[in-house]
Amino acid sequence: METLAPLLLLLLFVSASAAPIGSAPRFLGPYARRKSSGVASPASYEYDVRYFGQTLDHFSFADLPGFQQRYLVGRNDLWSRNGPIFFYCGNEGDIEWFAENTGFVWEIAPRFGALVVFAEHRYYGKSMPFGSRESAYKDAKSLAYLTAEQALADFATLLTDFKHNLSSEGSPVVLFGGSYGGMLAAWMRLKYPHVAIGALASSAPILQFEDIVPLETFYDIVSNDFKRESLSCFEFIKESWDALETCGQGNDGLRNLSKDFHLCRKLNSVGELSDWINSAYSYLAMVDYPLPSSFLMPLPANPIKEVCRKIDSHPNGTDILVRILAGINVYYNYTGTVDCFDLEDDPHGMNGWDWQACTEMVMPMSSSRDKSMFPTYDFDYASYEDQCVQSYGVRPRPRWITTEFGGHDIRTVLKKFGSNIIFSNGLLDPWSGGSVLHNISDSIIALATELGGHHLDLRPSTNEDPDWLVGQRKTEINIIRSWLNDYYEGRKTSFLTQLY
Amino acid sequence: METLAPLLLLLLFVSASAAPIGSAPRFLGPYARRKSSGVASPASYEYDVRYFGQTLDHFSFADLPGFQQRYLVGRNDLWSRNGPIFFYCGNEGDIEWFAENTGFVWEIAPRFGALVVFAEHRYYGKSMPFGSRESAYKDAKSLAYLTAEQALADFATLLTDFKHNLSSEGSPVVLFGGSYGGMLAAWMRLKYPHVAIGALASSAPILQFEDIVPLETFYDIVSNDFKRESLSCFEFIKESWDALETCGQGNDGLRNLSKDFHLCRKLNSVGELSDWINSAYSYLAMVDYPLPSSFLMPLPANPIKEVCRKIDSHPNGTDILVRILAGINVYYNYTGTVDCFDLEDDPHGMNGWDWQACTEMVMPMSSSRDKSMFPTYDFDYASYEDQCVQSYGVRPRPRWITTEFGGHDIRTVLKKFGSNIIFSNGLLDPWSGGSVLHNISDSIIALATELGGHHLDLRPSTNEDPDWLVGQRKTEINIIRSWLNDYYEGRKTSFLTQLY
Repeated sequence: METLAPLLLLLLFVSASAAPIGSAPRFLGPYARRKSSGVASPASYEYDVRYFGQTLDHFSFADLPGFQQRYLVGRNDLWSRNGPIFFYCGNEGDIEWFAENTGFVWEIAPRFGALVVFAEHRYYGKSMPFGSRESAYKDAKSLAYLTAEQALADFATLLTDFKHNLSSEGSPVVLFGGSYGGMLAAWMRLKYPHVAIGALASSAPILQFEDIVPLETFYDIVSNDFKRESLSCFEFIKESWDALETCGQGNDGLRNLSKDFHLCRKLNSVGELSDWINSAYSYLAMVDYPLPSSFLMPLPANPIKEVCRKIDSHPNGTDILVRILAGINVYYNYTGTVDCFDLEDDPHGMNGWDWQACTEMVMPMSSSRDKSMFPTYDFDYASYEDQCVQSYGVRPRPRWITTEFGGHDIRTVLKKFGSNIIFSNGLLDPWSGGSVLHNISDSIIALATELGGHHLDLRPSTNEDPDWLVGQRKTEINIIRSWLNDYYEGRKTSFLTQLY
Repeated sequence: METLAPLLLLLLFVSASAAPIGSAPRFLGPYARRKSSGVASPASYEYDVRYFGQTLDHFSFADLPGFQQRYLVGRNDLWSRNGPIFFYCGNEGDIEWFAENTGFVWEIAPRFGALVVFAEHRYYGKSMPFGSRESAYKDAKSLAYLTAEQALADFATLLTDFKHNLSSEGSPVVLFGGSYGGMLAAWMRLKYPHVAIGALASSAPILQFEDIVPLETFYDIVSNDFKRESLSCFEFIKESWDALETCGQGNDGLRNLSKDFHLCRKLNSVGELSDWINSAYSYLAMVDYPLPSSFLMPLPANPIKEVCRKIDSHPNGTDILVRILAGINVYYNYTGTVDCFDLEDDPHGMNGWDWQACTEMVMPMSSSRDKSMFPTYDFDYASYEDQCVQSYGVRPRPRWITTEFGGHDIRTVLKKFGSNIIFSNGLLDPWSGGSVLHNISDSIIALATELGGHHLDLRPSTNEDPDWLVGQRKTEINIIRSWLNDYYEGRKTSFLTQLY
């Protein structure tokens, strides 16, 4: 049976007792990867698994133990010294899962003679400080070094050493990343231009901080994705929250709801159920791909269309919760093999992204009264902070990310600074609202596709890919080629300058 | 009486027992500031002294105490909201001393209506973590957070908060810095383009790492500065080291040397004396200004010319050490008020720059056989590292600075990346050899003056300034004006774009 939510997106604002930590939308959680089905992955890429002795705190000289960072190196007999390196900036999960789901990099590498490297993010997968996951996640003290800046420094250190060991200092590095990994790729190009010549940052919401974009953006986009398929579907969902609250009154209410929704255990609160339903909608918006996928869950093409068809297709007078269940069944049980739904037992348990959300990655979100199909909610930083202090004993630094990486007035700041970044986005993806959607300069480019989802461009190509997706990838390939050509041209020139 | 060496530059490679830590040339040491003479500073600028509650480790969430960072804010009634801020990146010393010696910033600010801010570097002056200098410098554990990246993050955090409190987020910030402060200014523009629109990095040897420039560069330049004044002077100095060794044989030898050189106490080794003499030459090369100064020591214009005049002017057959003493007397006793010379009692005592040199700031230097007037020396990293482990219990990361900030192939890397940096250098300054001396792009500019010394351009102007210095400053002013104009133009455009 599949886990509840590969991409955990717990929108707890429904219940008053909701914990804002869990409630912040996440890209990926500890359950992000589907439990292995026992069936071999359709796409399997050839790589060696290696480990690199990494520094735990790059920015201080405190006496701390190092740790082993895992990275994958594609097998490529055609690569030669000073040839390109395509480097995937691992995000909050097991790097092998990202490698498996980032077919684009594997597919295009051969035509550039590029070596593929996937580097795991510290504190995820097998890249655990303090020797084990248990020790790394023990408490705030052991988690203290789980930050984006340290992860970027890991990548820079790994790459520098990797090239040095291959006597290939002249290799141009192109960065790739999706979602949080895309944020890392973009930031890395900005902070380490001497390490990488360019970055493809797919679905990277680097502006989803403070008040850079309206706080309602994320849920408005999710809601619009449903509304564009069917206004009635949007309205049914919008009305369903009150119905849930009403039905869930009292102990009997919770028992009935648990039974009606085929849950494996009895609910403790209506909030638990709303979160689970909410998550489905937001994930559906992210993976509303024009073709079948099993990135998160096995899903048909255009899954929101399918969800709304289920919700809408019941006769007039049908109980609204029956409609809702039929809808989310598409997400949680498309294969029809689920006996009962297994809600996450410990949604507030320690996991990496929750820690990151409670320290640096404070991405405030609200739900608007009119445009959103979700219950109205105004982001409340004070309770967010309280929750972090309670859960982890840590106080967030909500203004730190923009201090360290910028974001405000990004077009002015980067217009004459920096180069060679592609921000690609699918506009159906709710994270696109916090990303860069307009060109900043000749070489800091935004590629937005109206019908795309969450880093769809990075996924393996299929025969069913629509033309606009094929075209988007072609554009990306051409831009990357121009970076590489520029680089090698520049080297030739500088080499000749030195000679004569 | 003046202290031994305001800019401690202990070149211990003469004696075999020399400690490489102390031996690495420093910009400034704990004795960098001349002991107060009791006479009021000629240039005194009007400012308020303030403190900012700073984070000790910006890049981790370890539970550490904050500290108070000192900064100076110029009094300026004419400054208005969103007006420019001229920000000096404090280096390894008391910020008031830098404020006093950086007249350029104070002098040009009024014509831009700019507010002047001088921020102190953590672990220097009064900006001490853990409550006091004693606690901050207690051991490797307390010193662990004395790094350049933390200092830059301090500046970014301070500036962001400062502007926020003034409701002046639109203020463009121009960075200034000399020497290590210049390195910080350049790096800050590269790492925090959203915080500052440009940087004047004066005498900033950001390439003095690993093997980016030849290791002999520094001492070759010092030596050339003497050779250009007088070949015989250069030769006398080059010969003097053996004479020193010979004279210093045995206990009587050391006693005699101590007496001949008017030292206040008896030498323990010849190396002590050579270091002291070496330091004088290197400092002289740094401050070989075309006009009288008292930045380090009270000195005449073109002090090396004066030193060589003293060395050369003795009749043939004069003992070579008599010549040498006459020469360095110009540096250590130009006012003629010194009774005896007080060698630093504890040259290896804990101080900030030594720690930085033993962690990140590994700037390898050798002394060549032919071009250098110093004893031949090949940089030996192993013994350098040993010394750091012995002295501080810390192991340097000699490749970290270039991993974090780059340096290799800087012209290729920054040709199409970054903007608005001036690297200014005086070619008599031995640190110029590790700086950027050629334009990188239209807006990353190198301004080198043949007859300039160590960040001479940042010093207060005088009536005796030569035309080329006046011209250099004018060029800098014009470039800074163009940055500010560009910025305000861009804001206007973006504001209009939003309106219509």
